[in-house]
Amino acid sequence: MKKKTSKPVLRLGLPKGSLQAATLEKMAKAGFHISVSSRSYIPYVDDDELEIRLIRAQEVSRYVEHGYLDCGITGHDWIVENGSDVHEVGEFLFSKATRQPARWVLAVPEQSPIKTVKDLEGKRIATEVVQLTRRFLRRNRVKAEVEFSWGATEVKAHELVDAIVELTETGSSLRANKLRIVETILASTPRLISNRLAWQDSWKRRKIENLAMLLRGALEAEAKVGLKMNVPEKKLPKLLQSLPALRNPTISTLSQAGWVAVETIIDEHVVRVLIPQLKAAGAEGIIEYPLNKVVY
Amino acid sequence: MKKKTSKPVLRLGLPKGSLQAATLEKMAKAGFHISVSSRSYIPYVDDDELEIRLIRAQEVSRYVEHGYLDCGITGHDWIVENGSDVHEVGEFLFSKATRQPARWVLAVPEQSPIKTVKDLEGKRIATEVVQLTRRFLRRNRVKAEVEFSWGATEVKAHELVDAIVELTETGSSLRANKLRIVETILASTPRLISNRLAWQDSWKRRKIENLAMLLRGALEAEAKVGLKMNVPEKKLPKLLQSLPALRNPTISTLSQAGWVAVETIIDEHVVRVLIPQLKAAGAEGIIEYPLNKVVY
Amino acid sequence: MKKKTSKPVLRLGLPKGSLQAATLEKMAKAGFHISVSSRSYIPYVDDDELEIRLIRAQEVSRYVEHGYLDCGITGHDWIVENGSDVHEVGEFLFSKATRQPARWVLAVPEQSPIKTVKDLEGKRIATEVVQLTRRFLRRNRVKAEVEFSWGATEVKAHELVDAIVELTETGSSLRANKLRIVETILASTPRLISNRLAWQDSWKRRKIENLAMLLRGALEAEAKVGLKMNVPEKKLPKLLQSLPALRNPTISTLSQAGWVAVETIIDEHVVRVLIPQLKAAGAEGIIEYPLNKVVY
Amino acid sequence: MKKKTSKPVLRLGLPKGSLQAATLEKMAKAGFHISVSSRSYIPYVDDDELEIRLIRAQEVSRYVEHGYLDCGITGHDWIVENGSDVHEVGEFLFSKATRQPARWVLAVPEQSPIKTVKDLEGKRIATEVVQLTRRFLRRNRVKAEVEFSWGATEVKAHELVDAIVELTETGSSLRANKLRIVETILASTPRLISNRLAWQDSWKRRKIENLAMLLRGALEAEAKVGLKMNVPEKKLPKLLQSLPALRNPTISTLSQAGWVAVETIIDEHVVRVLIPQLKAAGAEGIIEYPLNKVVY
Amino acid sequence: MKKKTSKPVLRLGLPKGSLQAATLEKMAKAGFHISVSSRSYIPYVDDDELEIRLIRAQEVSRYVEHGYLDCGITGHDWIVENGSDVHEVGEFLFSKATRQPARWVLAVPEQSPIKTVKDLEGKRIATEVVQLTRRFLRRNRVKAEVEFSWGATEVKAHELVDAIVELTETGSSLRANKLRIVETILASTPRLISNRLAWQDSWKRRKIENLAMLLRGALEAEAKVGLKMNVPEKKLPKLLQSLPALRNPTISTLSQAGWVAVETIIDEHVVRVLIPQLKAAGAEGIIEYPLNKVVY
Amino acid sequence: MKKKTSKPVLRLGLPKGSLQAATLEKMAKAGFHISVSSRSYIPYVDDDELEIRLIRAQEVSRYVEHGYLDCGITGHDWIVENGSDVHEVGEFLFSKATRQPARWVLAVPEQSPIKTVKDLEGKRIATEVVQLTRRFLRRNRVKAEVEFSWGATEVKAHELVDAIVELTETGSSLRANKLRIVETILASTPRLISNRLAWQDSWKRRKIENLAMLLRGALEAEAKVGLKMNVPEKKLPKLLQSLPALRNPTISTLSQAGWVAVETIIDEHVVRVLIPQLKAAGAEGIIEYPLNKVVY
Repeated sequence: MKKKTSKPVLRLGLPKGSLQAATLEKMAKAGFHISVSSRSYIPYVDDDELEIRLIRAQEVSRYVEHGYLDCGITGHDWIVENGSDVHEVGEFLFSKATRQPARWVLAVPEQSPIKTVKDLEGKRIATEVVQLTRRFLRRNRVKAEVEFSWGATEVKAHELVDAIVELTETGSSLRANKLRIVETILASTPRLISNRLAWQDSWKRRKIENLAMLLRGALEAEAKVGLKMNVPEKKLPKLLQSLPALRNPTISTLSQAGWVAVETIIDEHVVRVLIPQLKAAGAEGIIEYPLNKVVY
Repeated sequence: MKKKTSKPVLRLGLPKGSLQAATLEKMAKAGFHISVSSRSYIPYVDDDELEIRLIRAQEVSRYVEHGYLDCGITGHDWIVENGSDVHEVGEFLFSKATRQPARWVLAVPEQSPIKTVKDLEGKRIATEVVQLTRRFLRRNRVKAEVEFSWGATEVKAHELVDAIVELTETGSSLRANKLRIVETILASTPRLISNRLAWQDSWKRRKIENLAMLLRGALEAEAKVGLKMNVPEKKLPKLLQSLPALRNPTISTLSQAGWVAVETIIDEHVVRVLIPQLKAAGAEGIIEYPLNKVVY
Repeated sequence: MKKKTSKPVLRLGLPKGSLQAATLEKMAKAGFHISVSSRSYIPYVDDDELEIRLIRAQEVSRYVEHGYLDCGITGHDWIVENGSDVHEVGEFLFSKATRQPARWVLAVPEQSPIKTVKDLEGKRIATEVVQLTRRFLRRNRVKAEVEFSWGATEVKAHELVDAIVELTETGSSLRANKLRIVETILASTPRLISNRLAWQDSWKRRKIENLAMLLRGALEAEAKVGLKMNVPEKKLPKLLQSLPALRNPTISTLSQAGWVAVETIIDEHVVRVLIPQLKAAGAEGIIEYPLNKVVY
Repeated sequence: MKKKTSKPVLRLGLPKGSLQAATLEKMAKAGFHISVSSRSYIPYVDDDELEIRLIRAQEVSRYVEHGYLDCGITGHDWIVENGSDVHEVGEFLFSKATRQPARWVLAVPEQSPIKTVKDLEGKRIATEVVQLTRRFLRRNRVKAEVEFSWGATEVKAHELVDAIVELTETGSSLRANKLRIVETILASTPRLISNRLAWQDSWKRRKIENLAMLLRGALEAEAKVGLKMNVPEKKLPKLLQSLPALRNPTISTLSQAGWVAVETIIDEHVVRVLIPQLKAAGAEGIIEYPLNKVVY
Repeated sequence: MKKKTSKPVLRLGLPKGSLQAATLEKMAKAGFHISVSSRSYIPYVDDDELEIRLIRAQEVSRYVEHGYLDCGITGHDWIVENGSDVHEVGEFLFSKATRQPARWVLAVPEQSPIKTVKDLEGKRIATEVVQLTRRFLRRNRVKAEVEFSWGATEVKAHELVDAIVELTETGSSLRANKLRIVETILASTPRLISNRLAWQDSWKRRKIENLAMLLRGALEAEAKVGLKMNVPEKKLPKLLQSLPALRNPTISTLSQAGWVAVETIIDEHVVRVLIPQLKAAGAEGIIEYPLNKVVY
Repeated sequence: MKKKTSKPVLRLGLPKGSLQAATLEKMAKAGFHISVSSRSYIPYVDDDELEIRLIRAQEVSRYVEHGYLDCGITGHDWIVENGSDVHEVGEFLFSKATRQPARWVLAVPEQSPIKTVKDLEGKRIATEVVQLTRRFLRRNRVKAEVEFSWGATEVKAHELVDAIVELTETGSSLRANKLRIVETILASTPRLISNRLAWQDSWKRRKIENLAMLLRGALEAEAKVGLKMNVPEKKLPKLLQSLPALRNPTISTLSQAGWVAVETIIDEHVVRVLIPQLKAAGAEGIIEYPLNKVVY
């Protein structure tokens, strides 16, 4: 509609709603700056080979499968729930804060007599992922009624149904609601998926692969930091030996005799353990700096 | 009023309102931390050689010309609209997201019979930049009525006037309002301007020049990133030759034989193209990191 | 309640309310990611050796003293106000914006006849720090009534009391309220404090010391930046001599003959003075980059 | 959990979310003051014979049918969509602003070739009311794919599906999205529904009937006003005859001879037509006043 | 565009922005319910003989004059500032809170030597109403430069210009900014204005007149209340005589012998003076109730 | 400062903060329209015999006692906590929603062994009302440590102290925090208080008394409604006899023979019980309308 050109364009679906701001920020880190206008449903992106659509995470895989989108980012859970036939290009890193995947879990009130999935026979379960839950019950040869929950599922577990299947990361919201986890049904991470036909098209495939590389580089960088320090030359071998986390560091000589500079890229969550050890091992002037992208 | 000292002070006008937050952030990146209180119209700045005033972008050039301010930051458009006689110290970078200057464009409804500026003869035009528009019409020997628009100009184009002159960056707001661009009247970028007398004063001039250098360094850094990678020594010449974007890299030897480290500063928007090429050319461990300032 | 394990855990109190967001951000920079739920008073932290409690800054030292918390972060002012008997582990850096500690000052209306603390004899003073103020008056052998102020203390100085004791950083809020500072009573910086018994426990003490090292590294990094530049080899000695701020730089040779790369860590607020000097001294390609942690 | 008493209690489900504030306001007008706490899912109500649950409008009928709630307020649409077997106690008034019921309509892009439901054969339709839509298609002997829409349905009509079934009141949101209404599928008004067993219980039934009477009285009052005026006695008959809207007025004599006071209750939306006519017919001192409840 | 019907329609311009919510509320009280959508610039109104446009108050009179609107509501100030040739249908009541019209006043800093308009000779004045101010200066035979102020005018008076012309109701914002009023230039109240041609059209004229009657009735009602009380019959004459504010009350006999009921409509701001007097004069059971409309 | 007039003025302190909006609304209902500016600490009121100060509810009684304010509105609790020697002019109605006074209660965790105040011996209690709590303990001959709580008191009960004294209305926040009420310490309602000297001044006293009358009238009106209905004349005696809530109704004859109009003022919370009874007793056309003031 916007232009009548034969220039190839890749249609990318991004999750709208609660994940939108985080996703646009990650796209910007990957190098693609998107701005959303309240007056138009087509966001602007500073790459005219790309067309962005913001779509509920629950629906992305459906429209990728049907070919309305060439590719999209969504969770593994909704791909499975929708049973979408798509090509999975890549999986991305877990949440930086918890370093754990989101999990759909079967939960019941703390005092509930339900201890295992077997105890659900003949019960009622509320959830947003009806298909996932039904499949899980079938696998366990349990017959129970599964009903779609429009929201506030956690509250329902106390009076309206016998159990729920709900998404959790750290479990703290479930604990705050006095619920107990019975079993994990599915762990889910974000995926980049492609329509099967689009994946055959060499131009689109390369574009998608590059996007995946840049996005993975940006996400990787969120969980990594750069670390530099000065080390007395003679303490270096022992330090490197005892700290395998410092893999493949760059060692360079300093103008100050007897000292070397050691630089490496490292998992951010390891730093809090490593820095005290480095200090103890004789390192000085330890500097940690942020990264935008890390591509191995 | 605040102090009775002979210490020299530079009065700097910054744009109030929609650009305020972004401007204060950029000033902080340049090294000047400003905090605005709701109770006082004089913001605090951590430099007692500086006095900040927040003034509408439309009015900055007027008060710099009259000498109430020594210098200020405002758009080229409003300097021209006001016809202000000031010294232009420097022009800053375009928006990071779009890498395009803002443009004042003549726009009409998509279905309008108006195709060129000549078709405006005898028509009515609404705009915030009345003088700019009148000058544009005179240049084109067209007689039309130009009226000042107090806001929501885009909506007026459909019923209240025949055409509008409005600011746009990507054109997406115009498109969402079903408007068509007829012609661009003026492209505008932010400028640092100085009062002509203040520019004669050597202390003030040096202060302004340093401010310009630091601010440009900070803005430059928003559009640049640092890039480091490891490259097999023998692949280096070809890689550098085929990728001229990697201008003047710092090459340093690594402790691992046969490999060198290549480091450079590069336009952020080039990275998304370059990284796939670097990978293909044999680079490994590619790291992109953010910059605060870049001063050549 | 959460777990029945003999695993040791450190209970850390962080200030709730206006300082909360800033403190959680600094903890994240130190490597500890905390997320607060509206449904639970126990925040999640990605370190199971740590338990976080969010407590008003005014009360942290009290609960550390009593042993409900092993350690906590709070201001020097509230430790003194509460007269808490705790071990002070470390002091942190001043505000980045103003580089000044917060101060509790005695203030009066601009036109008030009160010129020194002696003029307070028989007067009434409103303040949030009643004990601090009483001690200050005793030290000055002045008898005056001190009453607890529940808020909006600055406004009271004009009609309801004769003087106030209030917290200020830049003094701009006092100036906006037409108040004059008579004297500074206490300058206060954030402190990490420990319960005296917890400090005897070797596991807890090491955990607290590491936390202090990481937090100080993160705070230090907020006020520092990395600086790199290229310098003609022959200009280097003079440049280093004339710019002592560039202490202990890393000098490395460049592939381009006759040039060296100089890199150092430096106070952020010095940069705005230094960069113009470096340019004048022949430095080129000056790059400033942000840091996450600096641990000497 | 709250109390162990044999006192009878009626469990009432009210719609949570976008309709919540309006519903609680109407309940207050009916005489039941409810306050919702962010910490508890059980709202407070100043009637200990009542227990309130806030539940998504889409789910109320399901939980009333199952007996978890004795009665509830929800839309006719969701009762039908869920196919819930409940007793319908009463229907409430339409929106005050538009005096029209909400309608689920089949809509397509303005330029779409689809003109009637028959043109949907083999097409795809997105909607929140999947069952309603499937039933509508069956009635029209049309085969089409119906998929559940998680939101932003209007935007989908342009690219992702061929038609949508969406809720509208005035149609202005559809028009703003350049959509055309093909057919109305269901008009829906709010209903008070009861569980069939609860309706057998005489105490609960009376409680529900009284609630219905008060709620209807409150809603009725939103669309009515009181009107008083003074009329010359001799003009009265003609005035009453020509203005049948003034049904059953209360006529009372005034101390001023020859004048009577006329008072009545009238539809608010008629007033704007009636007042000019009353003035023309000789009425004076016309007063309109608001009502809290109207129970015939 | 919306419909192709010969049905007559009246185009009404209402002020957009800060007065919008208040105006829509008053229109609703007059009987016209308007709802504004963020997606469309044409608001919905429940009267298909009316079309609403929301336009900045500063511009309403211009578009009424040109005939793009049949009528509109705006301030007397902007009609004069624009010099618009329109028919003024009616003036509305002052603000309920202050019972004073808004006034454009000439103001200077408290300490300024400017005491009268004559002292402005050769000075600079900032204002939003440039034409009004120039006319005022000409009337006073004073030559001064008048410049358009884009906002925050009050702050400018202290440094950027010598005087301002600014809108005020109670003067408290000027006082808070340490400004002194020199003279009032124009008092302004809201007006309903009509295009001169539209006023010739009998259908439109009647529609506008009815709108004026209803709107005035609604505004009148905001400043009035109903008052009822019981009075001993023998105290009535003295009470009515001594309290002329009780004009034309309705007197009715009560079933309780010796008492009459007195009812009247009265200015709301008089009530706080009157009720103590009525109590003292023997009235009992005094009831004040709100009104929606008062049409004499 | 504002004016140099000998006109008498009454200084009234109103509670700032969470109760402010509600209090200003009630003052407006009483007939005094107050507007608060963010730039000035002196609110505007449309009565130049009144000067308003907004002061934290905790401090109002202190400043009334000292004479900085002539009178003020605050809670009974804070008058007692401060031990202020003031004249109490009047008590106002309870909350409309709950019809219960706010209560300061002693509360402990649900599982706590503390059953009565006696069990507090040697324990620690956190509260905002330290004096009230100490007095309560003395009365009960219990020795315990009472510490001032700066907020979030409910959370402290679980770990930091043994018991709390906290304000509650319905108890639902305590229940949500799993706390159990041990005893009520003080029930508190809003009071109008006067400085003892101001109460001697006849002008001030009359002004305060009138203010009390109007404010009580406005508050009374919040909890009352007007009720009108038509009743068959022969059913009237029985209806009045069986419904004593209908005290002192006004009975007037209707033009329709055999029917009378009955009108009365009644507690709002009784209506929901009364209307079904009235209907059953033969009343028709029952109208409930809102009141602004009720002064007996």
